[in-house]
Amino acid sequence: MIIMTPRLENFFSVKSICVIGASTTPNKPGNVVAYNFVNSFPGKTYLVNPRGGELYGKKLFPSVLDVEDDIDVACIIVPAKYAPQALEQCGEKGIKNIIVTTGGFNEIGEEGIVLQNQMYEIMNKYDINVIGPNCLGIYSPSLGIDTMFLPDSKLKRPKSGPVSIFTQSGAFGAAFIDQLSGLGSGQWVSKFISYGNASDINETDSLEYVGEDAETKMILIYLEDFKNGRKFMETARKVSLRKPIMGIKANRTVTGAKAGASHTAALSSNDAIVDDLLNEAGILRVITWDQLADCVLAFGTQPLPLGDRVAIITDGGGAGVMASDMVSDCNLQLAEFSPDIQKKLDEIFPIFYSTGNPIDLTGSATAEDYRDAFDVVYNDSNVDSIVNLNIPCIPDLDIDDYVKYTREFALKKKKPFVTALIGGEEGEKATKNLLAEDIPVYPSPGRAVRAIGMLTDYTKYLIKHGVDPKTIHVEE
Amino acid sequence: MIIMTPRLENFFSVKSICVIGASTTPNKPGNVVAYNFVNSFPGKTYLVNPRGGELYGKKLFPSVLDVEDDIDVACIIVPAKYAPQALEQCGEKGIKNIIVTTGGFNEIGEEGIVLQNQMYEIMNKYDINVIGPNCLGIYSPSLGIDTMFLPDSKLKRPKSGPVSIFTQSGAFGAAFIDQLSGLGSGQWVSKFISYGNASDINETDSLEYVGEDAETKMILIYLEDFKNGRKFMETARKVSLRKPIMGIKANRTVTGAKAGASHTAALSSNDAIVDDLLNEAGILRVITWDQLADCVLAFGTQPLPLGDRVAIITDGGGAGVMASDMVSDCNLQLAEFSPDIQKKLDEIFPIFYSTGNPIDLTGSATAEDYRDAFDVVYNDSNVDSIVNLNIPCIPDLDIDDYVKYTREFALKKKKPFVTALIGGEEGEKATKNLLAEDIPVYPSPGRAVRAIGMLTDYTKYLIKHGVDPKTIHVEE
Repeated sequence: MIIMTPRLENFFSVKSICVIGASTTPNKPGNVVAYNFVNSFPGKTYLVNPRGGELYGKKLFPSVLDVEDDIDVACIIVPAKYAPQALEQCGEKGIKNIIVTTGGFNEIGEEGIVLQNQMYEIMNKYDINVIGPNCLGIYSPSLGIDTMFLPDSKLKRPKSGPVSIFTQSGAFGAAFIDQLSGLGSGQWVSKFISYGNASDINETDSLEYVGEDAETKMILIYLEDFKNGRKFMETARKVSLRKPIMGIKANRTVTGAKAGASHTAALSSNDAIVDDLLNEAGILRVITWDQLADCVLAFGTQPLPLGDRVAIITDGGGAGVMASDMVSDCNLQLAEFSPDIQKKLDEIFPIFYSTGNPIDLTGSATAEDYRDAFDVVYNDSNVDSIVNLNIPCIPDLDIDDYVKYTREFALKKKKPFVTALIGGEEGEKATKNLLAEDIPVYPSPGRAVRAIGMLTDYTKYLIKHGVDPKTIHVEE
Repeated sequence: MIIMTPRLENFFSVKSICVIGASTTPNKPGNVVAYNFVNSFPGKTYLVNPRGGELYGKKLFPSVLDVEDDIDVACIIVPAKYAPQALEQCGEKGIKNIIVTTGGFNEIGEEGIVLQNQMYEIMNKYDINVIGPNCLGIYSPSLGIDTMFLPDSKLKRPKSGPVSIFTQSGAFGAAFIDQLSGLGSGQWVSKFISYGNASDINETDSLEYVGEDAETKMILIYLEDFKNGRKFMETARKVSLRKPIMGIKANRTVTGAKAGASHTAALSSNDAIVDDLLNEAGILRVITWDQLADCVLAFGTQPLPLGDRVAIITDGGGAGVMASDMVSDCNLQLAEFSPDIQKKLDEIFPIFYSTGNPIDLTGSATAEDYRDAFDVVYNDSNVDSIVNLNIPCIPDLDIDDYVKYTREFALKKKKPFVTALIGGEEGEKATKNLLAEDIPVYPSPGRAVRAIGMLTDYTKYLIKHGVDPKTIHVEE
């Protein structure tokens, strides 16, 4: 069997790069990308601008043909009408891997289609791999690669971490990257790929690459359609046995498809079929935007559960009921505590606490009650995951101590443990403190349980396919 | 036809109140409630503590029987075992309306059931109305009424506004009250009722009262079961033609019901039937906690739409597709722009913007583009609601100007207008600034559209029942 190197490998294992359209005007796309590489890229960076001169201490070559060194990857950031010429010159120069971030092609109709067709001809003539056009390109903080043409003042960059992302929508990508930069420690991203119009590199290439990439521990996707659905699903079936894949397949509805048509010319398929295919391929489907960051937090910090039995610890009966409803919605089960564990709970807690599952510590709960409940439940072999729900406004709960115990317990990391903090100022402060250490905290009982639901769905998929969930580790 | 005064009217039109169990120990429940009334209640406040002495400049009466004045409402905050005696004395004194916040009754099993049965006997003997036991009681900032026994340092109080809330779960109520205090201006609450074990006053009494209350413009509920489902639905059918009613009916699932059983002894009904009944009665059902505050923001600040046709304005195609999917999920329609409006849009925007619906201003959007799109679309008689989606990281968008235009447009208030701001730091700052003026901003496209969906569901209900949605105003 011949193992093919994924085509995107060439883009990320780059030793020399050329920015075509490097601009001396601050914050222009060609200026931002030049800055990114000059500042962060450990390999060689060449800048091209027909006017010549200098930028960030580097010579501006009039044309890529004037660069004497070999170039692995070129990033073309010139207006669409000049892009074919730039691509032609890259071909002549023998550059095989090109990122075209510029928009103004198929997505704008007739005029753009003519231009994109010209690009196709040149790509075929020189056998070039192209990411784009109409995209953000690629980003990898650990490799110092960053073709995202928005300045850091506009688009904050997350630091290096376990999550790789590929997206059909550049705007989605930018917004999500921006959001991840502010999530907890901000240490989340391995590889980011925005392939825009997918004139060449597409969703399957992206999945093949991040599937093999050692730094990538989990994969997050945004798709509106498939260039090659069959091949994508085939690849996903293999990758999902090693790493979780999750994300959004938009264009779920006829209305969505209508919107998509004028966006990336995506055709909506029958969504029920898509849903089945995603399921079969082990892709965990996310519907709402909120759920995306919720998943990153859960998968990126928690071990996988070994089963579907959840323990809920709360100080508010209503929160426990809402969480229990969600347990059912997510095809989870409320754990039945082992007899010795049940006995212990009955011993340590006052009679008016409810020691069944959910454990309701009531409005009389203290931080120490939470600590004790965590410890007891943790040792129950009937419990696979723990959900910690807290309404901090109750009188005897010291919120700082509660945060301390929650943090200490979260560090054990033998069973997934998620928290929901519900309420005003005190809750928000505690949430911030815990998130800063990448401890997953959600703003509602339902979202906490749903996070466990996603982890458990992946466990179930692995077990069904004969893979031991203990062997898969996303979290550090 | 005899118009009965709702029983809760007696609790809120109170001129003299007595706190039984007023405590001199700071932050104890009996201390907090005494403080609340002494500080905020414009009527007469009497404090009772068998030890006598003084508190907050007021005499502590050894017993309620020692108070010579008439008392409209008593609030009993003594330990459960002393509660029957306190209630008996209230009966002797002729007090007809009593709030018992103390827990330790039916909800803790055998021992508590005995106590609650004793309470029933006394209530019947003296024909007393009781809120509770095991509850937070009532809160009305405009009337200076506050039996919530958690200090302001723990539980922040929202200011006076259009929303009345009643809840079976005190913990839910506390958490939601706390949350509302930090939502936008914090000016949200008209009446809050937590009736706990519902030994007497229940969900129907609560709905009857807030349904008639002039200050109440919208009603938010949390229920796990019904004491009298038929009567509640009957009342709701009348009230929902005048004010929107929305909220959570938990215990949706068998698992939830199991959790609820040990909480307020609630029995889950077949949820599909409950769903139909809520629908028929015009109660807008909310499933997730996030959706609650989302609804308060939408209903509390926006007019009702006159139809289901939504215009979406975005700078990110992907966000537009996700929003369009949600348009379909919420049984809304993407508006088809009128020919003259379409012509105008095509004239003012560059060819590479997508001027269909969703309007995609692309990554080239400026704040002025948004302003112009708002203005044009607003004048289209084919558009009932407007959804404004923004990914602020794009290069030429000045976020401060964008906030300015969004604010100006939001003030027109002739059609519902909601915003989603998606991304990191800049988005969060802009969100905060807009929310501070009670302009509804959501963190995702889906939640913005869903808010319009809820408003439109209510419009549809009103139209179906022959009520003109133009006559209903929640927003100020």
